[in-house]
Amino acid sequence: MLSSLVRSGSGTGRLRPRHDPSVAERVSASAATTAGAVLRTEDFPQWLEERGRAHRFTVERIPFHQLDGWSFDDTTGNLVHRSGRFFSVEGLHVTRDEGPQREWYQPIIKQPEVGILGILVKEFDGVLHFLMQAKMEPGNRNLLQLSPTVQATRSNYTKVHQGADVKYIEHFTRPGRGRVIADVLQSEHGSWFFHKSNRNMIVEALGEVPLDDDFCWLTLGQIGELLHRDNVVNMDSRTVLACAPFSDDGAGALLSDTELVSWFTAERSRQDVRAERVPLHELPGWVRGRSTIDHEGGRYFRVVAVSVEAGNREVTGWTQPLFEPLGLGVTAFLTRRIGGVPHVLVHARVEGGFLDTVELGPTVQYTPDNYVHLTGGDRPPFLDLVLDADPARIQYEAVHSEEGGRFLNAESRYLLIEADEEQAPLDPPAGFQWVTPAQLTSLVRHGHYVNVQARTLLACLNATAVRS
Amino acid sequence: MLSSLVRSGSGTGRLRPRHDPSVAERVSASAATTAGAVLRTEDFPQWLEERGRAHRFTVERIPFHQLDGWSFDDTTGNLVHRSGRFFSVEGLHVTRDEGPQREWYQPIIKQPEVGILGILVKEFDGVLHFLMQAKMEPGNRNLLQLSPTVQATRSNYTKVHQGADVKYIEHFTRPGRGRVIADVLQSEHGSWFFHKSNRNMIVEALGEVPLDDDFCWLTLGQIGELLHRDNVVNMDSRTVLACAPFSDDGAGALLSDTELVSWFTAERSRQDVRAERVPLHELPGWVRGRSTIDHEGGRYFRVVAVSVEAGNREVTGWTQPLFEPLGLGVTAFLTRRIGGVPHVLVHARVEGGFLDTVELGPTVQYTPDNYVHLTGGDRPPFLDLVLDADPARIQYEAVHSEEGGRFLNAESRYLLIEADEEQAPLDPPAGFQWVTPAQLTSLVRHGHYVNVQARTLLACLNATAVRS
Repeated sequence: MLSSLVRSGSGTGRLRPRHDPSVAERVSASAATTAGAVLRTEDFPQWLEERGRAHRFTVERIPFHQLDGWSFDDTTGNLVHRSGRFFSVEGLHVTRDEGPQREWYQPIIKQPEVGILGILVKEFDGVLHFLMQAKMEPGNRNLLQLSPTVQATRSNYTKVHQGADVKYIEHFTRPGRGRVIADVLQSEHGSWFFHKSNRNMIVEALGEVPLDDDFCWLTLGQIGELLHRDNVVNMDSRTVLACAPFSDDGAGALLSDTELVSWFTAERSRQDVRAERVPLHELPGWVRGRSTIDHEGGRYFRVVAVSVEAGNREVTGWTQPLFEPLGLGVTAFLTRRIGGVPHVLVHARVEGGFLDTVELGPTVQYTPDNYVHLTGGDRPPFLDLVLDADPARIQYEAVHSEEGGRFLNAESRYLLIEADEEQAPLDPPAGFQWVTPAQLTSLVRHGHYVNVQARTLLACLNATAVRS
Repeated sequence: MLSSLVRSGSGTGRLRPRHDPSVAERVSASAATTAGAVLRTEDFPQWLEERGRAHRFTVERIPFHQLDGWSFDDTTGNLVHRSGRFFSVEGLHVTRDEGPQREWYQPIIKQPEVGILGILVKEFDGVLHFLMQAKMEPGNRNLLQLSPTVQATRSNYTKVHQGADVKYIEHFTRPGRGRVIADVLQSEHGSWFFHKSNRNMIVEALGEVPLDDDFCWLTLGQIGELLHRDNVVNMDSRTVLACAPFSDDGAGALLSDTELVSWFTAERSRQDVRAERVPLHELPGWVRGRSTIDHEGGRYFRVVAVSVEAGNREVTGWTQPLFEPLGLGVTAFLTRRIGGVPHVLVHARVEGGFLDTVELGPTVQYTPDNYVHLTGGDRPPFLDLVLDADPARIQYEAVHSEEGGRFLNAESRYLLIEADEEQAPLDPPAGFQWVTPAQLTSLVRHGHYVNVQARTLLACLNATAVRS
């Protein structure tokens, strides 16, 4: 029966190699190029400032009742938009079978739509340049930061709301308009979003690309330099950049890839986490006031409302809720060279809003203010090591904002800190593991392995000499 | 700052290669070996029969009120166990924004615990042999089928219920007892389970392994022969076997791996599927009787209850609910050689119980009886092509049972059918794509890409000459 199989030659010409290493080589070459062919890095601040002058916005806190189109649902108390779209603020009840905190309630953002975060790339002078946008988001510290070429919800780009066209979107939604370099659904903040994921794309343009006012072409090396500055490269850019393939030098690792995936599977399997959405109304431990919803202990974050006004008459303003974390976060990888190969210490983190229980996060991802009341063994692992790090051991440091469209002043100090055996042993505590940047790069080809904070750190790693 | 990084030699000896191609080579060698070193394939039927004589069981349908420990919850009507463990039968409400059916209600099994499906392997005469178990499951056609070494829920192996020890479990739960060959969380039937996944593991034993009565060592080639027989190799075995790595000959494919993952990401992103659990009580379109819960159109499946009695006094009986599909299923891959390389036509399937909207399924996965009322363009794509296939084009065919611990007489005819350009063009309809078996093998290293039926077909592909 099987011998009857005809080996037809049909479609021979359409066969292609499964892997094309030249793509990763060109990405690595762009990362090594700090001289842009289009805009010089030293001219960038002025360019961004000009874009800021062209789009003046003011953001003001308002009481909830001044929200336009948003209201608390009579039955559930959920904060919803009258269109039933955009997002809603609901309650979440989480229980788990281990860890210091076994049960909690919290507000959470539900936004079921999958958006596109896409960066268009193109060669200039033989080097890949990335098309970045100067984009205002109400929650960002400086309002204007560098975003991906496209940052659009599904409603945006399918024009459910008949809004303005999303520029360059056709490169990401119409197959054949470009060559895909990366395309993967990645989670966003599991502590603040329920099951949220966005499509992270890098696409190489075929043919000419007209340059719009708010956009600029930068090499990955230039963006790497900007990643060393505070609050310039926004979160959406960082997560997309983390998905870029990099040349693999074939170096070994503490764990083989099979062992690493097995460790991850064990971590995900052993956690018994239940996260159920509940009404925001009378959420235990949270108090709704006129302008804020606060944790009764004054910790974690609060829900607020803002009004965005445009200084420019061409654009109208809007109002919306935002989550505002309390205090500056600290997000860090401890790093070590093992047998000459750089490794970072990942943490298998449970976050209530993750689609699947656990993702790999940074070694440390906390807002220290939330833990000042804890001492000794109750302190989160490695937190004090990071807070008290010897400056000589700090390999990377910058403050970055989280998604400014949903979070207000959500800033975190991102760090790479070199550790030694005494501080961070090769046999780490349960839930922690040493992995190489190359292993993280291979995992981010797939969704739900690496959380959004660890993806920021991966983008930062790629922008430093620590990776190699 | 970065130049201060000390290249310490710590841990050099612990570094290992990220990939070890010898593992896949040894798996492929086992697949090519049809002469077992321990049990001859011709002796297998007698061995299985003996195990059947040692464990006589009878399974009888009973009305719901005769279930012991199970009852319909007063408020929700959900069918639950008094312990709150095992599983429950609840309602599901699914809405989606495309496809012939945009909304439906159905009963669904909720079983949040992650189980372990594990096969222990070991070399005999230099060839890997797989330790398989003769295991009774009440829903299986022949009751006794060949299962993985270990098939255990978390409650089983953590002994929440103080039940009997799970044999060989220590090889899967204690790191260092073996060498991991595959370890991944895979989904189960998304049409019948809500967000269910199990840990699929293959572990090579270190040291001696005592052989218990109900167990036998077989090469992958022997298991491949048994996969050509009806109802011998159970579903849990098939899904684990599908996760085995196979040597990759470096052949090309119609789509590069990046293009394939991008196509999958687009399929998952464009689907707007909402699946919400609802009470089983008064589930629209379903009728609860004394012994069954039926679809009012007499289609899909029904919920039933059974009593399991042991003929052997050492083992006690039990009662439980089961899902009983109506009619024999048909599950098939269309195959083509493209440029000499075998490809199969996958379908990006929406199933209400999937954790993440879409997984890659077979070309055809239907119970034909459910579609007899449809004609012309309303018929599921490729279904009639498979039902009317020229026998000369059938490369593989056998009837297999789905999970016999939850489903009663859930049988499907599994097929590989060679197609041509007219029947199945290289540019297939939306939602379909050509992939190579090697690409499927690389995808099943990760969870939630390939559904359980497609994994059965992958195990069958690996057991035929179609793969190569």
